[in-house]
Amino acid sequence: MKIAVLGTGIVGETIGSKLAALGHDVMIGSRTKNNEKALEFVNKNSGQTSSGTFAEATVFGEIVFNCTKGEHSLDALQLAGTGLKGKILVDLANPLDFSQGMPPTLIPSLSNSTSLGEEIQKAYPEAKVVKTLNTMWNGLMVNPTLIGNGDHINYISGNDAEAKSKVMALLVEMGWKKENILDLGDISAARGTEGYLPLWLRIYGATGSNAFNFKLVK
Amino acid sequence: MKIAVLGTGIVGETIGSKLAALGHDVMIGSRTKNNEKALEFVNKNSGQTSSGTFAEATVFGEIVFNCTKGEHSLDALQLAGTGLKGKILVDLANPLDFSQGMPPTLIPSLSNSTSLGEEIQKAYPEAKVVKTLNTMWNGLMVNPTLIGNGDHINYISGNDAEAKSKVMALLVEMGWKKENILDLGDISAARGTEGYLPLWLRIYGATGSNAFNFKLVK
Repeated sequence: MKIAVLGTGIVGETIGSKLAALGHDVMIGSRTKNNEKALEFVNKNSGQTSSGTFAEATVFGEIVFNCTKGEHSLDALQLAGTGLKGKILVDLANPLDFSQGMPPTLIPSLSNSTSLGEEIQKAYPEAKVVKTLNTMWNGLMVNPTLIGNGDHINYISGNDAEAKSKVMALLVEMGWKKENILDLGDISAARGTEGYLPLWLRIYGATGSNAFNFKLVK
Repeated sequence: MKIAVLGTGIVGETIGSKLAALGHDVMIGSRTKNNEKALEFVNKNSGQTSSGTFAEATVFGEIVFNCTKGEHSLDALQLAGTGLKGKILVDLANPLDFSQGMPPTLIPSLSNSTSLGEEIQKAYPEAKVVKTLNTMWNGLMVNPTLIGNGDHINYISGNDAEAKSKVMALLVEMGWKKENILDLGDISAARGTEGYLPLWLRIYGATGSNAFNFKLVK
């Protein structure tokens, strides 16, 4: 499948490398055409990888992964532009506010009674935003069996059932067991998964490791 | 031990009944001296249970449990008054805002860059506030073995190590395994555990059951 990965940070690199290793054609997108990290990504990954601007990558991908930092996502997607129309936009970002020191809080205008996922969906009503993978360290996103035999939770939310189902299939390809992916409903559930980040950060602080997640017990 | 339980709602009743069953002397506190639910609580529970105003209960208790609704906690504690001085105040409340419909959001002034736990600590600097038990359905608070052999997580936070240690011992009496109680540090960690509530509510909505919790996988 042709997949666009927007963002050349650690999340974009991790997701892009995994999808390329799975045989997908990955174009990594960044603000500038010749972004150094994007070129490095293409060099390091065999298979059909390429790089381009946010706009070029978005036009290329059947599915677009938003791996930009939450504080920049809405701006970055503006550069992606009209190519988002009709596309599945997988949003992994968290609206963290580092301006008040550590640990970060959530960006007030993107939290509590709204969320980054919702604001992206509002800004691009013709895209099908699916929120997932934003509740864990990036190493676990693409390799859930690193801990607990892979039996820990991932959430998915979005307004379009078919889009969620396609992303679910991709998550299963990436190593997630279907029974561990909990569908929380429409995109407003992103308030919940993004709002979990402050707790995630405290647990990271208390345990000293980011390689953790949770198994639902019921 | 002499324990005050502030609040006659389902959480106060559940916590008070459990502590009474464990042999503690429980005084349940409410706004008015002859609160119907408080009298009912005393009638239903054998052992040394009694009822009184918030102020009377607070003076009585060596440990005080705040089981009032988060939106009313700061007001209720004002009625508890000077009796809080030097006491361990176990805060179970969540600052949920039901004014915008369901599911609730968090009360903006008590979330993100602060928390109810922190604001209580600020308002009563001579009390030792310990936040715990606020991340699960009340039935699990007092009976963790209801699910998963009791192997699921509870958090504790607060500025006073000795106070946390005493509350930890009480939690163990209530059925919690020590290894499942994660110390997140000072009371500012309440931002994390209270901020998890919106996700809890979405999971409740998606699964249709409130009898769930999480096991830390690492």
